Amino acid sequence: MSVYDKLREIGVSLPPVTPSVALFLPFVRTGNLIFVSGHIARRNGEPWVGQLGAQMATAEGQAAARAIAIDLLGALHAATSDLNSITRIVKLLVLVNSAPTFTEPHQVANGASALLNEVFGDRGPHARTAIGVAQLPLGACVEIELIAEVA
Amino acid sequence: MSVYDKLREIGVSLPPVTPSVALFLPFVRTGNLIFVSGHIARRNGEPWVGQLGAQMATAEGQAAARAIAIDLLGALHAATSDLNSITRIVKLLVLVNSAPTFTEPHQVANGASALLNEVFGDRGPHARTAIGVAQLPLGACVEIELIAEVA
Amino acid sequence: MSVYDKLREIGVSLPPVTPSVALFLPFVRTGNLIFVSGHIARRNGEPWVGQLGAQMATAEGQAAARAIAIDLLGALHAATSDLNSITRIVKLLVLVNSAPTFTEPHQVANGASALLNEVFGDRGPHARTAIGVAQLPLGACVEIELIAEVA
Repeated sequence: MSVYDKLREIGVSLPPVTPSVALFLPFVRTGNLIFVSGHIARRNGEPWVGQLGAQMATAEGQAAARAIAIDLLGALHAATSDLNSITRIVKLLVLVNSAPTFTEPHQVANGASALLNEVFGDRGPHARTAIGVAQLPLGACVEIELIAEVA
Repeated sequence: MSVYDKLREIGVSLPPVTPSVALFLPFVRTGNLIFVSGHIARRNGEPWVGQLGAQMATAEGQAAARAIAIDLLGALHAATSDLNSITRIVKLLVLVNSAPTFTEPHQVANGASALLNEVFGDRGPHARTAIGVAQLPLGACVEIELIAEVA
Repeated sequence: MSVYDKLREIGVSLPPVTPSVALFLPFVRTGNLIFVSGHIARRNGEPWVGQLGAQMATAEGQAAARAIAIDLLGALHAATSDLNSITRIVKLLVLVNSAPTFTEPHQVANGASALLNEVFGDRGPHARTAIGVAQLPLGACVEIELIAEVA
């Protein structure tokens, strides 16, 4: 099934691609790999602020991770012009804004992994590293970096 | 010398390979690179819990990093079926569960680097990044992600 | 314009290459990629110690990130013998030693990105992930890891 059909089926719309005004790019392709920059969680276009283990619980962190995965799909679409050309999600680095006592960054990360697996089928399962960090840009609760393989 | 002979010589047994029940994979190969997921430290099969600079000293952190390196070898063996086919350990990302005052994540990381160098000889030395993080999955004291090159 | 001419124009001298005495290497090349180890900020050869959001402000963090970028150029020069052979800066991982309240690691990272963009022109813009971490080796304020592509 086309990745785009699958996205429609589960009701996911890709975000509009906005030109970067930053000193870095949303993604870089080298050989068959696309390195996607760390994307912070956003809600209604604004940074999704919070810290896990403080004012935010695991379930909300998972929703934030899922929202990032959708933005990462937007970046991959911009990078490839066709998400069906992606042959493998290679690796995620999932960074969770964590109070010193929060020990479930892997559960938060599942919010992104589950969506990618659902959308990409057997090309979805990936290597992954999930960690708890002291802070993130603009106070975001989660940030995710991704590597994908294209044909 | 075969990597397996070397492992026997230094008394290291590879862990059994257990099928993943998670939403991600222990490793993904793309081209000549194998990306191994972040592995947390375990002792007797349980998460090796602790924070460096709090209830855990550098020497114990090094032992935990060494234990992870053995688990990473298990993952690489599962990925390649033959550790001798690995032409280079490319990079480690070493994440140390750190109290705000602990400034020796690089010393902790040496526990993993030393084992890999011993096992792989001149194919062992690698690039590396070691940092102190706020928390790790299940409260583990150390987590390591690895990239290796195969022929 | 040659990268070296550009460096002269902006008054940047590459650091001397010192042989590594550590258990890891400053860089590893695999295929067309060079993985450069995490480099901590240094000033006058000593670790540039501090924490953003505590005793260090964003502008100083940017200066530290710029200093690291120069050291990364030194590593890339050692790796390639000719910085002009670099076809792309692929990705930075920027780790900022952060008080729990510091939410501008991306601003700190700009100190490195700006220099790389200036030196490499249209081969400079890169993917990037910037995060705030609990601590860094030797108490350094910033650490940066880099991936570059060569022809």
